[in-house]
This record gives sequence, C-alpha cells and structure tokens, in this order.
Amino acid sequence: RHVLVLGHGELTEPIIEELNEAGVEFLVITPDEVVTRTLRERDLNVFTADPSDEEALERAKVAKARAVVAATNNDAEDALSILTARQLNPDVAIVAAATERENENKLKRAGANTVISPASIGGHLLVESALERSDSEAVARELLSEDSDGGSAARRDADRDGSTPTDDS
Amino acid sequence: RHVLVLGHGELTEPIIEELNEAGVEFLVITPDEVVTRTLRERDLNVFTADPSDEEALERAKVAKARAVVAATNNDAEDALSILTARQLNPDVAIVAAATERENENKLKRAGANTVISPASIGGHLLVESALERSDSEAVARELLSEDSDGGSAARRDADRDGSTPTDDS
Ligand SMILES: [Ca+2]
Ligand SMILES: [Ca+2]
Repeated sequence: RHVLVLGHGELTEPIIEELNEAGVEFLVITPDEVVTRTLRERDLNVFTADPSDEEALERAKVAKARAVVAATNNDAEDALSILTARQLNPDVAIVAAATERENENKLKRAGANTVISPASIGGHLLVESALERSDSEAVARELLSEDSDGGSAARRDADRDGSTPTDDS
Repeated sequence: RHVLVLGHGELTEPIIEELNEAGVEFLVITPDEVVTRTLRERDLNVFTADPSDEEALERAKVAKARAVVAATNNDAEDALSILTARQLNPDVAIVAAATERENENKLKRAGANTVISPASIGGHLLVESALERSDSEAVARELLSEDSDGGSAARRDADRDGSTPTDDS
C-alpha cells in the first residue's frame, strides 16, 4: 500500500526523503507540470493534477492508500485536498502541515487526523537558541533521528545497517 | 539587551510570539513597508530597511544585541543578513532557519551559530505520523512546551503563573 503526497511545497522534498528512507511506496500529485517533470526524472511516481480533484484521487487509488500527506505552503489548498481525500476514504490516515498555526484546527475539521505547524516548531527552536535556553540544533538532530519506537539516534544506529542519518553535516 | 529579527517570513509570527512570551525586547527589520505598518499597529518595534544593510544594523544597535534571528523564506537573503550582522558583531549569537536543508551549512559559514531546518523537522514528523510510527502531534506539543531547563509542559505549568501556553486548542 502506498502513501499519497498531495501537492508540492517546501516540505515535499523532506517528505520524499523520509518516505524513500523508510522504503515506502508513494505517489505525488501536483498541479505543477514542471515539478512533475523534475520528479519523474528522478524516477519518482508522480502525475499532474489538482490534488483536490476527485478523479485525480480516484486515479491515485486513495481508497487503498496507506496514508495521505497534505503539506503544501497553501493551507487552503491543503484543506480542499483533505476534504476530497476524506470523502473518498473515511478510514485513511491523513496528516497535514499548517503553514499558519491558526489553520491547524481548520485542517483537522477538514478531515486530517494529525496536523502540525512546522513554523511554530521552528520559531520555538530558534528563540530557545537565541536566548541560549537550549541547544536547538541538538534537539532537532535528536528529533530527526528518532525511530519508530521513540528510540534515540544511538539506539537506531545500533539497530540498523550502518548507514548514517545525515549526509553532509 | 534586545534581539534583532532580520527580515520577515513564515517563521516571523511564531518568533514574535515566542519572544513576547519570554518578555524579551526585540526589533524587527524588514524591507517590506506593509509588514512594518502592520507590526507597528501592534505596538511592536520595527523599521523598514534592508536587513543586510550595514547602516540598518548599526541603527538597530547590532553591536549591543543579545541575539540575531535570520529566518525569512529566502535563504540567500538570510545569508546576506547574517554576513552583515557577523561583521558588525563578532560575538553575538546568530540563529537561522534554512528553508532548504542543503543551505544549513552555507548559513553557518556565513556566520550563524545555530541553523535549523523547520521543513526537515516538519517532513520527518509528518511521515512518522503517516506511517503510524509515532504521535507527531504529541511530539510537537511536547517540543513547544519545553522549558529553558528542558522540562516538560507539566513541570512548566507547575512553575509558572498559571497562563496557558496554547490559546485555541
Ligand atoms: Ca500547509
Ligand atoms: Ca531561511
């Protein structure tokens, strides 16, 4: 079963990286043909369509999807995509990113199970660092390396095949 | 001593909220006059200038600043602002947000002490939730409520004056 990534924005590349790393099949639906071409050149599954369009989500087999991710920079577009996905699959897990924190609740009401606000998290971490209250880089590193069981990077590295979680740090 | 917020982007509002909550004096420098007017209407300290301009940062007393935050959506602009701030104050703490993860190292080389990538964190949390590996909302809540000493929300709520960290959840 596949994960549907609806739309394309700042978070899409990190999402694609995470899904690839997890070895999960996924399909991106974006209205932007240039994005489609770029992703297809990387052998990723993608097609061009409005991700809030019922036919597009049917074609993407939303009824059989493992999960749906709606995380463009445009919360209104995310809301529409979520409404469509929820209508076509009442049971699928839908996760979303609210670009503005005040939209968290709206995306939930549209049908998302989980909504986070990366800007709120980022702003918090930056201010904690600016005020020298905590080492936000370390917090971020720890967060990014957390495993499915909530384990730390050290635990995961011991569990895994020796590949490192970061590429150029 | 004040915190300088250089430029304006998606993260600025969360940053302003955090700084206000911490009771820290701050000054926003943005090239966007409309933003300046909006912030000034809220009685916030702000002026219109290019935040990579030496004179602007001198006027903003970067030499005496407690910290500098560079977190616009444009990493190139952040890099220029950081270079200017670092040149005028070799000792100030500079924190930055890389919109694209591959720019983390560039912002560091420009002079930032701490660089995080909110999109990477957001993408990670979303995929962890989509794959039902962890409850990312809970992780985000915990993160946002972490205190200066790394304590949990519960600990902080016990320590503080009874104000709640969230407004509408
Ligand atoms: Ca969004
Ligand atoms: Ca940036």
